[in-house]
Amino acid sequence: MEQNNGRQEPVLTGWRRRGHEIIFEAETPAGRAFDVGLIGAILASVIVVMLESVAVVRARHGAFLYALEWGFTILFTIEYVLRLWCVGRPWRYATSFFGIIDLLAVLPTYLSVLLPGTQYLLVLRLLRILRVFRVLKLVQYLSEAHLLAKALQASRRKITVFLFAVLTLVVIFGSLMYLIEGPAHGFTSIPRSIYWAIVTLTTVGYGDIAPQTNLGQALAAMIMILGYGVIAVPTGIVTVELSRATHTVSTRACPACGADGHDADAVFCKYCGTHL
Amino acid sequence: MEQNNGRQEPVLTGWRRRGHEIIFEAETPAGRAFDVGLIGAILASVIVVMLESVAVVRARHGAFLYALEWGFTILFTIEYVLRLWCVGRPWRYATSFFGIIDLLAVLPTYLSVLLPGTQYLLVLRLLRILRVFRVLKLVQYLSEAHLLAKALQASRRKITVFLFAVLTLVVIFGSLMYLIEGPAHGFTSIPRSIYWAIVTLTTVGYGDIAPQTNLGQALAAMIMILGYGVIAVPTGIVTVELSRATHTVSTRACPACGADGHDADAVFCKYCGTHL
Amino acid sequence: MEQNNGRQEPVLTGWRRRGHEIIFEAETPAGRAFDVGLIGAILASVIVVMLESVAVVRARHGAFLYALEWGFTILFTIEYVLRLWCVGRPWRYATSFFGIIDLLAVLPTYLSVLLPGTQYLLVLRLLRILRVFRVLKLVQYLSEAHLLAKALQASRRKITVFLFAVLTLVVIFGSLMYLIEGPAHGFTSIPRSIYWAIVTLTTVGYGDIAPQTNLGQALAAMIMILGYGVIAVPTGIVTVELSRATHTVSTRACPACGADGHDADAVFCKYCGTHL
Amino acid sequence: MEQNNGRQEPVLTGWRRRGHEIIFEAETPAGRAFDVGLIGAILASVIVVMLESVAVVRARHGAFLYALEWGFTILFTIEYVLRLWCVGRPWRYATSFFGIIDLLAVLPTYLSVLLPGTQYLLVLRLLRILRVFRVLKLVQYLSEAHLLAKALQASRRKITVFLFAVLTLVVIFGSLMYLIEGPAHGFTSIPRSIYWAIVTLTTVGYGDIAPQTNLGQALAAMIMILGYGVIAVPTGIVTVELSRATHTVSTRACPACGADGHDADAVFCKYCGTHL
Repeated sequence: MEQNNGRQEPVLTGWRRRGHEIIFEAETPAGRAFDVGLIGAILASVIVVMLESVAVVRARHGAFLYALEWGFTILFTIEYVLRLWCVGRPWRYATSFFGIIDLLAVLPTYLSVLLPGTQYLLVLRLLRILRVFRVLKLVQYLSEAHLLAKALQASRRKITVFLFAVLTLVVIFGSLMYLIEGPAHGFTSIPRSIYWAIVTLTTVGYGDIAPQTNLGQALAAMIMILGYGVIAVPTGIVTVELSRATHTVSTRACPACGADGHDADAVFCKYCGTHL
Repeated sequence: MEQNNGRQEPVLTGWRRRGHEIIFEAETPAGRAFDVGLIGAILASVIVVMLESVAVVRARHGAFLYALEWGFTILFTIEYVLRLWCVGRPWRYATSFFGIIDLLAVLPTYLSVLLPGTQYLLVLRLLRILRVFRVLKLVQYLSEAHLLAKALQASRRKITVFLFAVLTLVVIFGSLMYLIEGPAHGFTSIPRSIYWAIVTLTTVGYGDIAPQTNLGQALAAMIMILGYGVIAVPTGIVTVELSRATHTVSTRACPACGADGHDADAVFCKYCGTHL
Repeated sequence: MEQNNGRQEPVLTGWRRRGHEIIFEAETPAGRAFDVGLIGAILASVIVVMLESVAVVRARHGAFLYALEWGFTILFTIEYVLRLWCVGRPWRYATSFFGIIDLLAVLPTYLSVLLPGTQYLLVLRLLRILRVFRVLKLVQYLSEAHLLAKALQASRRKITVFLFAVLTLVVIFGSLMYLIEGPAHGFTSIPRSIYWAIVTLTTVGYGDIAPQTNLGQALAAMIMILGYGVIAVPTGIVTVELSRATHTVSTRACPACGADGHDADAVFCKYCGTHL
Repeated sequence: MEQNNGRQEPVLTGWRRRGHEIIFEAETPAGRAFDVGLIGAILASVIVVMLESVAVVRARHGAFLYALEWGFTILFTIEYVLRLWCVGRPWRYATSFFGIIDLLAVLPTYLSVLLPGTQYLLVLRLLRILRVFRVLKLVQYLSEAHLLAKALQASRRKITVFLFAVLTLVVIFGSLMYLIEGPAHGFTSIPRSIYWAIVTLTTVGYGDIAPQTNLGQALAAMIMILGYGVIAVPTGIVTVELSRATHTVSTRACPACGADGHDADAVFCKYCGTHL
């Protein structure tokens, strides 16, 4: 999937061919075992990173987790080098989506020697699990994901227009609330008021900042009802596009003019009038 | 419904047959009376469990509620034994969905002698009320529930893909917020930051943990708008599947003109008038 | 609308007829003026009740507002008596929806002499404004409201099944959280834990009660994601029913068998095969 | 777009014609450069206003930001005067939507000399960016925005009915909560209780006011479940209207067989093959 983008692959021989089979392919038993083991290692390493961030656990098992983290990093580094070695076009792999993710999955540990804290970025390793769909032959899931992606892409423009409208509203409402409530009630600046407007419009409602004057509460109530109604718009957009993507238009082509896209109940070609 | 899964039932005679009629069937007046009484007992026992958890009520009526709880438990235990006795295949009943629920509905009281506190699990008795649909001949409700279940099952894969995407997002955003805000602002560990990210993305927004730095609030605003838009996806999925499950189009094609898309109740082709 | 439910109305004469025209009908200029004035009086009286509840305003204008409230109540009482007098069937009016609302719109003031505080129930007067749709000839709004009501009624059973499922979930999750978090963390009883579960599942999220243990937060996260996905179900139900209610099925009836409900593109009756 | 509303425009000559080309049109390179520069200036000026509201930034760079603000205001004032001068019908421009926005974009600065604080209204300048759609030839986005606007307009009446129902509910629930909880628990007046009811029904849930009595929490739970279900209504409305607006079915009927429901691009009847 990652390499077969049209051009002829260089022919691999000997160990490199064997390594390519194991690491990049999932059909052979060895390749499948490798992939399942890899997923286990990724999940384990993400859990190690999470545990390390918990103060109580770090205090007790810090050294052990630190060692594990380095162990996983060295393992993934070796794997990355092997991938580079046994792939036909190393550069193309290194610059592909999964190639970059594979690199980002090891860099933070090395970086954390210089900049403490960056090792938490290792959770990006989780993105490597996207391979799970390829490995476990979840082809049907892939097609469902593709359907969702298609519907989201088709609604791209409508959602851009919608987001632009929401952002304009949020800036204007945020500034108004800054004028009405002011720094005394937690609305310390326009950017912070805009943050509050987003928290309110999206119905999250933390309550860390809340209007206290009558006018402010009246305006807030308006924003809430607006946000409550406005959520209907992206839902409507996605539903219509999903419905269209799911809808199965007849695949018959007209025998005379070759046009397709006929309705399922069409008897004659709608373009040239020939009987289908 | 619980027994008629294909194989021939053993023929019951005498008291066992009479008991089976009363306990398992709802057509006879006795069976119906038994079922209505059972539902009343279940609701009453769940309310007793709830009341017992309220400190003020327990202080005043604790002994009485405790006695009631044991009374209901003994009643349901007798009922469970009777069910085992008068059913044709006791083992099949005991391992069926309702058989397990019936057992779970009495176990916690006995368990609470050893492990105090477990008696609150008695609210699981509520699941027994699912029988209400069978008892009260709410067949239409059952078919509606079936329709909903069908639509949810059809959208199973899409929702799995969606949940996987949401979980990945939440882990990555949670880790980023842990780096940005840190333990000083309540983000004490990555798991807790992930909890915060879920609280925010789902627009629940408790406010027990809230970002306080500018960068953290900006990222939080992004997650909110994302969560606000992302809710459109499951809604779209379920709507499309429900629409498909509700729409009952026949798959018959007309033998004369080959047209399809006929309604389920059509007798003649709506295009050429031929008998289907 | 309120009287023409099939039976022949008694013939009114003289003043009673004139009063009926003014009070119950909206076609004549006098009737229209009466209705518009009535709506103004209702809105004004509701605003008076609201203002009276504000401590600052009550301290300053309490006596004036109290007088206004009694003024409106006496006005509406006279109107109610007039309605009873000039309507053909007083009892039928008194027991109709609007008749009861008209009575509830005056009772609280008289009741407040005995039970202070009940005068705030006067906001029920707002329901009288539902007449606005009839008065202002907002027939199209009425038909839209009818469409919405039809769609909601059609989805009645599905929504009942859905609500039953949500309530069962909420009771079980609430009890689990009571066991996990306990009274120390604000989950003081099972009913209160159920309240928390509803606050969380519906994504309201006050934050007055929030889980503090790791296990509690993990369970809470599950409830949130569930609630986030589950909201798709009522939306899907209502959308499908609205779509069906809006969908314009052909109104043609078959000339041979009289059946209707044909698709817009049908050429032959789907029941008897006659050409439409 | 702003001037071509039917009547013949006066013919402009010389500098005025040249200015009109640059300022009002976007086809020529000069006009395009002017518009892109204008968008940059608008965004920059809005950011200046936002930054000025942040106390830390104002303390350090206050004088500089103040100068920038006046600079932008003078720039936009010159632009406004130029627009008036080089447009064919100055009055029509001044009273058009964009003419008013252009004026509102400069007034607050002058006003802030008399009334400090009003300069924050300068964020209204953001509305000027709506021109971006015209400038960047985002015609497809415009048509998508038009589609959304059409769907929202078609659902206008249903949404009015829905909002009226929601407001009535919120007033009645707010008053009930005022009676149940009272000023002691934060429900200090009916208007504030209505604010709480809106915060709850829209699932925002700040938590600044939260019910504390058992009865209050039970009523709040009902409002939440209601709000959770009620959100399905606007979503359903918008989805159905969007679906209808997106679906472009021709209203032509076939001259031979009378069938309709043809696609907008159909040339021949899909049922009988006749030329439409």
